[in-house]
Amino acid sequence: MSTTIPEELRPLVDEPHYGVLGTIRPDGAVQVNPMWFRVDGDHVLFTHTTTRQKYRNLQHNPTMSLAVFDPAQPYRYVELRGVLDDVVPDPQAAFFLELAARYGDARTTPPEDAADRVILRMRIDRVSGQ
Amino acid sequence: MSTTIPEELRPLVDEPHYGVLGTIRPDGAVQVNPMWFRVDGDHVLFTHTTTRQKYRNLQHNPTMSLAVFDPAQPYRYVELRGVLDDVVPDPQAAFFLELAARYGDARTTPPEDAADRVILRMRIDRVSGQ
Repeated sequence: MSTTIPEELRPLVDEPHYGVLGTIRPDGAVQVNPMWFRVDGDHVLFTHTTTRQKYRNLQHNPTMSLAVFDPAQPYRYVELRGVLDDVVPDPQAAFFLELAARYGDARTTPPEDAADRVILRMRIDRVSGQ
Repeated sequence: MSTTIPEELRPLVDEPHYGVLGTIRPDGAVQVNPMWFRVDGDHVLFTHTTTRQKYRNLQHNPTMSLAVFDPAQPYRYVELRGVLDDVVPDPQAAFFLELAARYGDARTTPPEDAADRVILRMRIDRVSGQ
């Protein structure tokens, strides 16, 4: 167990695979959702808005974990566990558009919810996988 | 929010896509792992063993949630939230082999950990997705 992503698992986060983010709802249930993301040093960055359930979950409990697997080789996966370190306003949706480009989404103009857009910065505390 | 999987999301669970299962560790952190599964009525069935962390998590806290998306159309996903309803011994690994066949795994003989194999039966309490 380490906080560094091993070299052999690195392609899982460098290639534009969707991740699945786990958070904990205020009632204690787990919530899991597919997400765009980008790893930045010892953080994972997500685009999100302040009006959605995941944001409310993280305000209540900052615990979060991301699983990423390669659908072409699904035995290979990486799990990044951590906590919400920071929320950065993104009112021009610049980071949203950066992730859209990473994931091959054709959009080049800010989405309708741009005013509510934020960057969630998750600090990586534990890395596992195979 | 319903406990029934809508017809338009049904292919996500009928086709052999991997799911990502969220559980809660005894220290309160979320854990997310890719999993084989099969939906059976109002339950989701997983093959697992009694010696692994996810099993310990579920003994401590029966909350669990599964996210499934189609890598070819990743905007389409389904989230099934629920609790561990039942653990069924599978010492011949019959259910493991059934899932192996569903997912195109070539194995036809029980794995080395067959003696510890169990079927986790998750009761579906909430369905969401798009």
